[in-house]
Amino acid sequence: MSSILAPKLHFRRLELQGGSLDRISRRVGDLDDIFHDQRAYAALPKDKLVYEVVSSFPVPDGTEGGLFIGITYIYPGKVGDEYFMTKGHFHKIRNRAEVYVCMEGEGMLILMNEDRTRTWAEKMEPGSVHYINGFTAHRTANTGSGMLSFGACWPSDAGHDYDTISEHGFSKILVERGGVPTLVDRA
Amino acid sequence: MSSILAPKLHFRRLELQGGSLDRISRRVGDLDDIFHDQRAYAALPKDKLVYEVVSSFPVPDGTEGGLFIGITYIYPGKVGDEYFMTKGHFHKIRNRAEVYVCMEGEGMLILMNEDRTRTWAEKMEPGSVHYINGFTAHRTANTGSGMLSFGACWPSDAGHDYDTISEHGFSKILVERGGVPTLVDRA
Repeated sequence: MSSILAPKLHFRRLELQGGSLDRISRRVGDLDDIFHDQRAYAALPKDKLVYEVVSSFPVPDGTEGGLFIGITYIYPGKVGDEYFMTKGHFHKIRNRAEVYVCMEGEGMLILMNEDRTRTWAEKMEPGSVHYINGFTAHRTANTGSGMLSFGACWPSDAGHDYDTISEHGFSKILVERGGVPTLVDRA
Repeated sequence: MSSILAPKLHFRRLELQGGSLDRISRRVGDLDDIFHDQRAYAALPKDKLVYEVVSSFPVPDGTEGGLFIGITYIYPGKVGDEYFMTKGHFHKIRNRAEVYVCMEGEGMLILMNEDRTRTWAEKMEPGSVHYINGFTAHRTANTGSGMLSFGACWPSDAGHDYDTISEHGFSKILVERGGVPTLVDRA
């Protein structure tokens, strides 16, 4: 991981301050709930990397007033016509916001309100800054041919609610239609 | 300001989301409390720019769980042997943290605990990430020959307490000693 961490952000100082560094890798086999084309999904090798997240936790999880920092790297790829993407989540404390800054690549930040009546997306490109309001589910898709990477900052007491998305998904999916990333209603 | 915003971060999307954008400029004349060499300070033109901050407020000030984002640009320069630097502040809600990511230039992030018994500094360079714990005053000095710029993210209910620093300063100052930025006790 060290080579892909190098170009824009590094966490050396955070480690020196005594914070802990967490690295997770999500492979095809870890993501069986999220892609709509289950036949295409089954054809992919289960150990193929989809995304990795390196996070720095300078204070304990749940600390009020603190912040966590992470970098997400999504590999290029598709499952059928759907782009490689993250699981997506609400925050456990629903009003907690999050900020993303895109570092490299092309992507779409997919957002959904809490009652699932509205799903929308914002284009990510190097330097783009994104504000994810509280009460808003968020996931990110790599729509380009290279790595998509972005930094994130969120409150250290936000927590993650993956289950709601794992059970119900987003109300729209992002698929390629004639070479263009397009949000469509789920079949 | 648009040209110096362009290279790494831009706020276009935040503006589209309806958030407000705030730009402040701090000139020599706005900073009469912070530099120790008052003779050198008096000799500088009052309208000379020391730093500028562009901030995005996607939610109202004071919102619990939200985040604010800013970019600070500190011009190169010195007042006597002391580097151009920001006013510095505690957060009004003391336990609120902040994250900095350096984009360009060389600098020092100067930190002080709440009871003023300890002042320390972290080196800033492109890509360095800094965690500012709650209860910690923070200011930034440009120790290089070009612009120092960094992005910041902090809770939207943190608030700013500039007065404590304006009245008492930090317990150490950052000065050049033989070409090296050095923290020394105030005279």
